[in-house]
Amino acid sequence: MCAASDESESLAERLLAVGSKIEPVLEELFPPEADAYLSEAVRYHLGTGGKRVRPAICLLTCEHLGGDPDCALHFAAAVEVLHNMLLIHDDLEDGDKVRRDQPAVWVRYGADNAVNVGDYMLGIAYEAVLRSPVGEGRRLDLVRAFTDAYTDTCRGQAYDLNTRGQQDLNVRDYLRMVTLKTGRYMALGMVGGAIVAGADSEVVDGLNRLGQKMGAAFQIRDDLIDLTVGKGRGGTVGNDIREGKSSILYAHAISAASREQSRELADIMRKPREHTTDADVERAREIYEGTGSLDYAQTAADRLVSEAFDIIPELPVDEPDFFRQVTEFMVSRRT
Amino acid sequence: MCAASDESESLAERLLAVGSKIEPVLEELFPPEADAYLSEAVRYHLGTGGKRVRPAICLLTCEHLGGDPDCALHFAAAVEVLHNMLLIHDDLEDGDKVRRDQPAVWVRYGADNAVNVGDYMLGIAYEAVLRSPVGEGRRLDLVRAFTDAYTDTCRGQAYDLNTRGQQDLNVRDYLRMVTLKTGRYMALGMVGGAIVAGADSEVVDGLNRLGQKMGAAFQIRDDLIDLTVGKGRGGTVGNDIREGKSSILYAHAISAASREQSRELADIMRKPREHTTDADVERAREIYEGTGSLDYAQTAADRLVSEAFDIIPELPVDEPDFFRQVTEFMVSRRT
Repeated sequence: MCAASDESESLAERLLAVGSKIEPVLEELFPPEADAYLSEAVRYHLGTGGKRVRPAICLLTCEHLGGDPDCALHFAAAVEVLHNMLLIHDDLEDGDKVRRDQPAVWVRYGADNAVNVGDYMLGIAYEAVLRSPVGEGRRLDLVRAFTDAYTDTCRGQAYDLNTRGQQDLNVRDYLRMVTLKTGRYMALGMVGGAIVAGADSEVVDGLNRLGQKMGAAFQIRDDLIDLTVGKGRGGTVGNDIREGKSSILYAHAISAASREQSRELADIMRKPREHTTDADVERAREIYEGTGSLDYAQTAADRLVSEAFDIIPELPVDEPDFFRQVTEFMVSRRT
Repeated sequence: MCAASDESESLAERLLAVGSKIEPVLEELFPPEADAYLSEAVRYHLGTGGKRVRPAICLLTCEHLGGDPDCALHFAAAVEVLHNMLLIHDDLEDGDKVRRDQPAVWVRYGADNAVNVGDYMLGIAYEAVLRSPVGEGRRLDLVRAFTDAYTDTCRGQAYDLNTRGQQDLNVRDYLRMVTLKTGRYMALGMVGGAIVAGADSEVVDGLNRLGQKMGAAFQIRDDLIDLTVGKGRGGTVGNDIREGKSSILYAHAISAASREQSRELADIMRKPREHTTDADVERAREIYEGTGSLDYAQTAADRLVSEAFDIIPELPVDEPDFFRQVTEFMVSRRT
C-alpha cells in the first residue's frame, strides 16, 4: 500500500504539472475581451480554480499509449471547458450560490447570462475538438466521443433533477444516474487521449467502462464527503440533504428505513433549502446511520473500485499499471 | 410583383410539404419515453408547433444544388432541434411564459429542467449531424458549420441580454447583434444543404452571407410586427418594450431622440416587465414615431433585402432565382 501511495503521489505531481499545459489553449479559445459580455464571465469562472485534472489525464493517457500529447491539447482543453460549462449550468439548476468559494456565475452575472455563457462555452468546446491536429477520421471519432459523453451527462442530470425526495428511488436508479452523469464525462479525457493516440476501439471501449466505474466510485465518495467534511461550498456539511439531492445514502436509506422514517426522510429532502435546519440534517444523518447507509456506501464505492481494477489487466495495452494509478488517484481525491 | 408573389406561394407550399419529411428523423432522435424526464419535455416543446421552415430550406437547397435531399435529412433535423433548444433557453432567459400559445418549457417543467432539456437537445442535434450519410470530410464540414452558427448565435444572444435599456446602444451594434443571433443560424439550413450537395466553398460562403442578410431583415420586420400586431405570445403588442429588448426601433430612437426623451425611453425599457404599463408602451411608440424610427426600420429592412438580392446573381449556381424566392419567403413571413 505504501508503494502504491508513493506512486499516486508522483502521479498527482505529474498531473498537476501536465494540466497547466492547456492554459495557452484556454487563452486561445477565450482571449480576453474577444466576445462582449461573454469573455469576462468565462474567464471569471475558469479563474476560480480547478486543478485541470481531467485534461491532464487526457494528455497522459495519450502519451502513455504512444501518441503525441501535444496533439491532444485541444481535446484536453475541450474536456475542461465542458466540465466548467456543466458546473455553471449545474449551479444555476441547483441554486448553488458558491463555487470554489466564489459567487457562482449565475449569482454574479444573472441567471440569463449563466445559461447563455454555458451554451457558448459548449460551442467553444466543440470548436476546440474540431481544431485537434489529427486526421479526419480521428477528428470525427473525437466529436462523436465528446457528443456521446455530453448527451449522457444531460441524461444523468435529468435523473438528478427529477428524483429528489422521491420515496421510490433505489440504489440501481442511483447507480444509473451517476454512471451517466459523472462516469461518462470522467471517462472522456482517457477516451479522447486514446483516440488521438490511435488506440484500438477495444482500448477505447475499455477505458470508457473504466472511467464509468471510476466516476461512480468518485461520486459515492463525494456523497460521503458531503456528510463528513463538506464540499468546499462555504464548508457546509450536509449540502446534499439541504438541496434534496439524490445521494447513494438517500437512495439506500429510503428503501431500507421503516415506512415512518422513510416518509420523514423524504419530507426533509423535499423541504426548500432555506427551510432545512441543522436539526433536519442531523436527523437525516441519524436515519442514514440507523439503516447502515454510510457503511453501504463505503462498500459500494470499494466494490466499484475493485470492478475498475478488474477491467485494467484486460486492457490490451503495454503497461496497464498506469491506469491503476489513475484510478487510485481519481477515486481518492477531493472534488 | 404579382408573379413573384405567386412563386412565393408555391414555394411556401413546397416548404410546408417538404418540412414534414423530417418528422420521422425527429421521432428517431427523440423516441417516446426513451429518456426519463427528457423525452416528454422535448416532445411537448416540439409538439407546440413550428412550421419546420428551416429544415425545409435545407432539403430544398440540397436538392436545388444537385444533391440527394434524403442525405440532408439528419442535418435538416439538427437545424430544427437547434432552433427549438434555442427557443427553450431564450424563453427562460427572457422570462417569456408563453411560446406558440402554450406554456413555455420552463413554466411547465421548471427552470432547472428547461436548462437541462435544452442542453440535451443540443447534444442530440450534434448526434443528428454525425449521423449524416455523407463522407467523413463533408461530415466534418457539417459539424464545423453547425458549431460556427451555434457559437455565433450565443454571441448575439449575449448582446441581446446585456444591452437592454442601454442609452449608448446604436444601430450598428444592433445590426451586429441580429446578424450573429438570427442571421447565422438562419443561414445554417442553406449552408448545410449546400455542403451535403457537395457545393463549392464559394457557394457555401455566399449562402452564409445571404442568410445573414435574410436573418437581419427578418429580425427587423419581427421588431416592427411586435409593435403592430404582436408576436403570438398571447397576442400582446409591444412585448419587446415590456421586456426591454433591444429592437432596431429602440437602437435608432435612443440616439435620435432628445436627451430628455432618450432618458425617458431608457427608463421605460429598464422597468421590470410587470411594472410596464400600456401607457408606457404607448409612450415608447410615440417616441419611435417622433424620431422616425418606424420608417427607419422599414427602410433598413428593405435595404438588407436589396443587399441579399445583390448577392444572389453572384452565386456560382445554375438557377440562382430559387434563392430569390427563398429570400422573399423568409423575410416576409411571420415568426
